[in-house]
Amino acid sequence: MGFIGAGNDVSELENEFDKARKLLSDLPTSLQTARDTLPIGVGFLLWGAPLQETMSIISKPHNRPAAVWLFAPRAPADLATWTQEIRQATDGATQIWIQVGTVAEAVAAVESAEPDVLVVQGTDAGGHGLSQGAGLIPLLPETIETVIKAAEQKQKATPLFVATGGIMTGSCFAAALAMGAHGATLGTRFLAAEEASIAPGYQNAVLRAKDGGASTVRSHVYDTLRGTTQWPKHYGGRGVINASYKDFENGMDLEQNKKLYDQAVKQGDEGWDEGSGRLTTYAGTGVGLVNKVQPAGEITAEVREEAVSILKRVSESVGGL
Amino acid sequence: MGFIGAGNDVSELENEFDKARKLLSDLPTSLQTARDTLPIGVGFLLWGAPLQETMSIISKPHNRPAAVWLFAPRAPADLATWTQEIRQATDGATQIWIQVGTVAEAVAAVESAEPDVLVVQGTDAGGHGLSQGAGLIPLLPETIETVIKAAEQKQKATPLFVATGGIMTGSCFAAALAMGAHGATLGTRFLAAEEASIAPGYQNAVLRAKDGGASTVRSHVYDTLRGTTQWPKHYGGRGVINASYKDFENGMDLEQNKKLYDQAVKQGDEGWDEGSGRLTTYAGTGVGLVNKVQPAGEITAEVREEAVSILKRVSESVGGL
Repeated sequence: MGFIGAGNDVSELENEFDKARKLLSDLPTSLQTARDTLPIGVGFLLWGAPLQETMSIISKPHNRPAAVWLFAPRAPADLATWTQEIRQATDGATQIWIQVGTVAEAVAAVESAEPDVLVVQGTDAGGHGLSQGAGLIPLLPETIETVIKAAEQKQKATPLFVATGGIMTGSCFAAALAMGAHGATLGTRFLAAEEASIAPGYQNAVLRAKDGGASTVRSHVYDTLRGTTQWPKHYGGRGVINASYKDFENGMDLEQNKKLYDQAVKQGDEGWDEGSGRLTTYAGTGVGLVNKVQPAGEITAEVREEAVSILKRVSESVGGL
Repeated sequence: MGFIGAGNDVSELENEFDKARKLLSDLPTSLQTARDTLPIGVGFLLWGAPLQETMSIISKPHNRPAAVWLFAPRAPADLATWTQEIRQATDGATQIWIQVGTVAEAVAAVESAEPDVLVVQGTDAGGHGLSQGAGLIPLLPETIETVIKAAEQKQKATPLFVATGGIMTGSCFAAALAMGAHGATLGTRFLAAEEASIAPGYQNAVLRAKDGGASTVRSHVYDTLRGTTQWPKHYGGRGVINASYKDFENGMDLEQNKKLYDQAVKQGDEGWDEGSGRLTTYAGTGVGLVNKVQPAGEITAEVREEAVSILKRVSESVGGL
């Protein structure tokens, strides 16, 4: 399932729904959902998305999405508010996905909002996530174990668990399934989808980057340069280390750095050139596993099929233990 | 298989070998290795361990270990030197394990030293590791894929891959196997082994800690306070966030912090008390999955059996996809 990334701004959301409906109507076979929703999701950044305006868009029966993905509230209570409003606006038909980055956030979200799905984000994720966190190994199993116990204790519904952050290939997806995930979402890998609406310079920078543990970093500096500074302070954006970041680390003042960044914006795709590039390449630590541009559907099928075949093979190979 | 952690100091290594031989001779059935080595390993920190003294100990036929684990060289070339010396000292009977934390380190180690085993350490590991890194998802699959290609291209032997850093339970081990690991090693989990020779205060702090992505941090400050400052600068130690770390973050000068640390050392186990504790609790982000003290053998068996049963169950459950 695909998600429209509305983020903190819904001014284009009606258009995005129109495009999605058109693409869906062009499919050879139509996709059905249990509650007759549009078979796509929409993601919102709660620190900036306007609640009432959003509800008026998603409550329209022809827009009603299969899922809404909520992330990065300014206050934890906003998750419950949004969840209630969405369930009311879509008559409970829209599934609520809530993204968390720690065990404590997961337990609190289940207690306050009882989402249908918890998206558990490891710190290997590209773009924004908690500045301090853990990788899916071991974040995912601790979260699942703790949430299930807490939900039972407090008589709350247990959500499904979706892993995100570092999932690039079928082997990563198989790993997440082995740790109890019901599914996974990929971000960085889809930056190299044919359909991705990103600049060619950005896409090439993703294809070029290797060894993301060494070549990417989670920081506030990219937000500062891009002017996306409304994020709550405990989030940072992971991107490929570039000239902007190196200059920042070497003590260049932010005003000068921002001036050079603004000049790079005018260069277009060259602004992502190797070595001299200053434009932001948000990407996860798994960026080195992204090596070619493919149709999004092919990526999805490949990751799923690889995971199934890996699990079968590994399960057979440990049979003797 | 267990490893003696000689670290950077071999003054106790002969004694440790004596103890190990005695414990091994008390086993109901004796453990055999292919090359008649002692069925244990020894780990060395290359930035500090003395090469010739080490060789004179491990070359003695009754000490000859099944494996030697090399980590943290001051210069990458030291890995090749140590590997050659060990292979000569033990007539090639001792397997060489080399620990790396990035894809680039892995490729370089295989090219220069052709180890038998690459230990791939994710940044979730407790204690020392690269200050900047990735979690096992996606570090492990990128490392395996890249090393295999590079080894073929340069006609070098392909090592086995052992995952470490965040592996706490059978589900984590199953995840590592799904990503191509031949095995895994656990550190933090064994801090709660009955046999662990650590202070009860330290062990209790491990049992108490939860949600390690939020409650641990990789930093230089613990080394500074403990006086273990000879580590090459690109390594940091991950430990549970404590009063020392909070004071450091809040701007307390290091001299004052060290004075308080030295006072805490005199308190013994109380130096690890919740909230006020200042002594270092090195532990990985998976520390929240460590909840009871068990015999080491039971931990090993449990992790292995859980992994096998998880892989069988998950493989069956995806059969319909």
